[in-house]
Amino acid sequence: MGNNYNYECPHPVAIPPAKPFIESIKSGIEETLFPDDPFRQFKNQPASRKLILGLQYFVPVLEWAPRYTFEFFKADLIAGITIASLAVPQGISYASLANLPPIIGLYSSFVPPLVYAMLGSSKDLAVGTVAVASLLIASMLGKEVNPNENPKLYLQLALTATFFAGIFQAALGFLRLGFIVDFLSHATIVGFMGGAATVVCLQQLKGILGGDGKVVSWAVVFSSSSFSQDTLARESQASFWISAMAPLTSVVVASVLVYLTRAEQDGIQIIGQLKKGLNPPSVSELAFGSPHLMAAVKTGIITGVIALAEGVAVGRSFSMFKNYHIDGNKGDDCFRDDEYCRLLHLLLSDHRTIFANCVVLSSIIIAAMLGLIDYEAAIGLWKVDKCDFIVCISSYIGVVFGSVEIGLVIAVAISLLRMLMSVARPRTFLLGNIPNSMIYRSIDQYPIADNVPGVLILQIDAPLYFANANYLRERISRWIYEEEEKLKSTGGSSLQYVILDLSAVGSIDTSGISMLEEVKKNIDRRDLRLVLANPRSEVIKKLEKSKFMESIGREWIYLTVGEAVAACNFMLHTSKSNNPVTDTGEFDAHDNV
Amino acid sequence: MGNNYNYECPHPVAIPPAKPFIESIKSGIEETLFPDDPFRQFKNQPASRKLILGLQYFVPVLEWAPRYTFEFFKADLIAGITIASLAVPQGISYASLANLPPIIGLYSSFVPPLVYAMLGSSKDLAVGTVAVASLLIASMLGKEVNPNENPKLYLQLALTATFFAGIFQAALGFLRLGFIVDFLSHATIVGFMGGAATVVCLQQLKGILGGDGKVVSWAVVFSSSSFSQDTLARESQASFWISAMAPLTSVVVASVLVYLTRAEQDGIQIIGQLKKGLNPPSVSELAFGSPHLMAAVKTGIITGVIALAEGVAVGRSFSMFKNYHIDGNKGDDCFRDDEYCRLLHLLLSDHRTIFANCVVLSSIIIAAMLGLIDYEAAIGLWKVDKCDFIVCISSYIGVVFGSVEIGLVIAVAISLLRMLMSVARPRTFLLGNIPNSMIYRSIDQYPIADNVPGVLILQIDAPLYFANANYLRERISRWIYEEEEKLKSTGGSSLQYVILDLSAVGSIDTSGISMLEEVKKNIDRRDLRLVLANPRSEVIKKLEKSKFMESIGREWIYLTVGEAVAACNFMLHTSKSNNPVTDTGEFDAHDNV
Repeated sequence: MGNNYNYECPHPVAIPPAKPFIESIKSGIEETLFPDDPFRQFKNQPASRKLILGLQYFVPVLEWAPRYTFEFFKADLIAGITIASLAVPQGISYASLANLPPIIGLYSSFVPPLVYAMLGSSKDLAVGTVAVASLLIASMLGKEVNPNENPKLYLQLALTATFFAGIFQAALGFLRLGFIVDFLSHATIVGFMGGAATVVCLQQLKGILGGDGKVVSWAVVFSSSSFSQDTLARESQASFWISAMAPLTSVVVASVLVYLTRAEQDGIQIIGQLKKGLNPPSVSELAFGSPHLMAAVKTGIITGVIALAEGVAVGRSFSMFKNYHIDGNKGDDCFRDDEYCRLLHLLLSDHRTIFANCVVLSSIIIAAMLGLIDYEAAIGLWKVDKCDFIVCISSYIGVVFGSVEIGLVIAVAISLLRMLMSVARPRTFLLGNIPNSMIYRSIDQYPIADNVPGVLILQIDAPLYFANANYLRERISRWIYEEEEKLKSTGGSSLQYVILDLSAVGSIDTSGISMLEEVKKNIDRRDLRLVLANPRSEVIKKLEKSKFMESIGREWIYLTVGEAVAACNFMLHTSKSNNPVTDTGEFDAHDNV
Repeated sequence: MGNNYNYECPHPVAIPPAKPFIESIKSGIEETLFPDDPFRQFKNQPASRKLILGLQYFVPVLEWAPRYTFEFFKADLIAGITIASLAVPQGISYASLANLPPIIGLYSSFVPPLVYAMLGSSKDLAVGTVAVASLLIASMLGKEVNPNENPKLYLQLALTATFFAGIFQAALGFLRLGFIVDFLSHATIVGFMGGAATVVCLQQLKGILGGDGKVVSWAVVFSSSSFSQDTLARESQASFWISAMAPLTSVVVASVLVYLTRAEQDGIQIIGQLKKGLNPPSVSELAFGSPHLMAAVKTGIITGVIALAEGVAVGRSFSMFKNYHIDGNKGDDCFRDDEYCRLLHLLLSDHRTIFANCVVLSSIIIAAMLGLIDYEAAIGLWKVDKCDFIVCISSYIGVVFGSVEIGLVIAVAISLLRMLMSVARPRTFLLGNIPNSMIYRSIDQYPIADNVPGVLILQIDAPLYFANANYLRERISRWIYEEEEKLKSTGGSSLQYVILDLSAVGSIDTSGISMLEEVKKNIDRRDLRLVLANPRSEVIKKLEKSKFMESIGREWIYLTVGEAVAACNFMLHTSKSNNPVTDTGEFDAHDNV
């Protein structure tokens, strides 16, 4: 049964010209690493302009400094004062979370922002001390060195770790590999943060309950007050000034209270006196020679990735209100916005800072951590996507009962497995005709769609790769078997054509091609005819190179399922009444994909 | 700009009813592990029949024994005699390849086929001694124990390894996990085999060149003769009897030659006398207590997987001529065929056997190995699919310069990475209208396709997952940016609508949904309108659950790009001339996917 009736295919399938190997490689790399085309503003500019743009690209301060007005300065001043009053105690508390001396926390709460102000481009990235990073340092280095027995070595390792975290992040940005944080899905991060927070809470609770009653009460007082302010602040932008004032006030109140009640004598920890002058640079402290170097490097890299992922996630969750987007490489934002963003954002997204001025470290940490356990997000995941929920929960459980690495590995592994399975076990759909149209859609989704007598239409839902070739061969032959059984039982007209809709098949490899060859042989053996619909450019190119095109015959490849079915029906009728019909007008304009 | 003109969508997008969680899990598992629906023949059968079918399923001999005729027996007798004359020396030579005593090779060349005859179902699976498996045993156990210094322990470990290989393969079959061999793509196996073969050749060459001249000459003689027979045998099915007779003849000739020339005195190894009686069962030899147990287990598992993959690959490469297919779980075949298959197959696919009767072990092995280096396949890979070629070459290099594990890991890693990248960096296509139709296709593939003024039509080519959410947001906003730039420069009509064609988006996760939300906000900010075309059932379900449906508005989701464009044009015109047009007849029957 050949296509020997002069039926004209209304819209032939095009085979795009094969690109040179090098060129396709180049475009592939561009598409993969530079989706945002970061250098588009450099295109066809004079060299001098290019230089300026280049400097601005790497040192954004040069870009916005000229446009910096007194209005901006006023806003930033208030923001700065407020944040300082928040960041200082937060720094101290997170330093203790990382088992490091308070002074370290103080420095890390104002040095990084200074640097970021020069080099950073995003007004949404919260720079400073981060609870999870501190926790990671403590838990990972704590295994190597006991911070209480050997504080000096521990400090050196911590500094080394942060050094490598920086190197690693810089490398990611420079190599445009920021996208690896994409592999930490939102679900993973929610679960991970929650898990980390739970661990810290349990640790700290032990501490508090071990201590005397006062500490607990203090904790309660500050937490509650803080949460009320917090919710207040979340209400709306209207309550902006309240939340901006609240921390300043409570700084003062708390300090006075502690001073009057001599709380330190009742076992409340206070920071005490700090030595004057600037800390000496810590370069000399980097312990490259230490036997624990590898542990430090590992800690640095994991901390770097997590901190980056958290920063990007938090930043994005805020930027979603304002149509920013941040990329892991630089924190680039595509739309400008007013200077209040950063302040408001710190108050809203980062609400642990609101009561960071409480001197009872445990309660700060606990309250902060509780803020990290985002159970609403988890519930949302369950409602919308069960698999994401599983990822979230397993990363939570992994962190709580295992370790941070285990939690991460499990979550990422599950996420990747799901992605792999979507390719390795693609779904195949039986298509039917939507009444009063020549559109063909899955019968599962559109129960109104009708079968076409004598024609089996299957849609394949993934690229044809080695991992799904065997599966698809099995599945397709089962579809055919079942269809023929059904037709036998119902006594319908026998099966004549099998149409494979390749609309969703983006690409194919050699295993996929030999799968198609086997499917064709199988179909030929049953005296059926294989017809392909809408092969995409990658697919049609390879089908041609591999000579499969010849074996199936170009006349059996159609642009749309509609045209394929029209052709099949044409053949069915002409093969019944053996006078070839030449008028194909009925197919040209009305046909569909 | 809302859909406030009474434009009727000709074909609404259906939202399939949500399945219960458990049910969807169940069907998911069935689709994943039982694509061939192995138990379909059990359906609605009486219990007694079910029992029989069940027995036949696990012990296929029960199925074919009743149908076994004298004709079959005659054919099998000839096949058996021929294969025996090939298998015995092959067994000995591969035993030496695995550094095991010859007797082991003799047993392993007839015991496994006996077992498989009872339990196996495929007539295409070559059962017996396999060069690569022997090589793996030698190379992996050789690291642990030196077979020359400590032969007893080495033998015990080898037996233990094979034991675990068996357990592992059985487990794979029982758990329906045979599909893991799918992850060893054809390209991987080609490269792996070639690499393994190269390693052995180099080892053996050292041996030969170390030995005296005669050995080499012998080697040459037998290799050349064998290759001539071999090519002869490959010519066609006509030369079947020639190739069937050849080995028998050369067994006799070679043995006579060796006997007459007293070749053993000239340093040619001969097997010598074998001790009478059956070997005692080796159960007692299993070294579970040995400190090297883990090495044995590892060797067993890797050997098991590779042997399975090779067996399936070789079997399939042959069954492709005859429309069999073999699955890794059992070696099930869907079509019957004549009994000559197995014999012919062993002669064609397994041409090392043709001259296995040469007693110069090195030359047997080398010639056999040379047959494993399938450079033609590698060239074919390069022609059709560069990436598969890279996989093949890297697995080759990994095996030759690293180790078998390294080779495998690299190849599988690259293959999986490619699959992941197809999801993590999906391609986005600009669609245009195919002239004289309402079909929309990629402009890259169909240069004749025309842009639709005021409408940007993008096609996304993968499920929307966490791994590509950021990438796609970037890429889409860049498409919009570039389109607007182009329109500005050409002074064309300004952009009004962005249509996302989701035909190829099989599923979506929560990250994908928030990506769509961000894209919509971005588009709204530019006073454009986001329109979705052909969301599939998984996608539309989740869009509804996540309330994105409401935010975009159901009236902006269309069944086909054609209908979406029609609606956009309708809006454009009515919004220009502000009298709503109610006649939508022009859209109903002509619309497209």
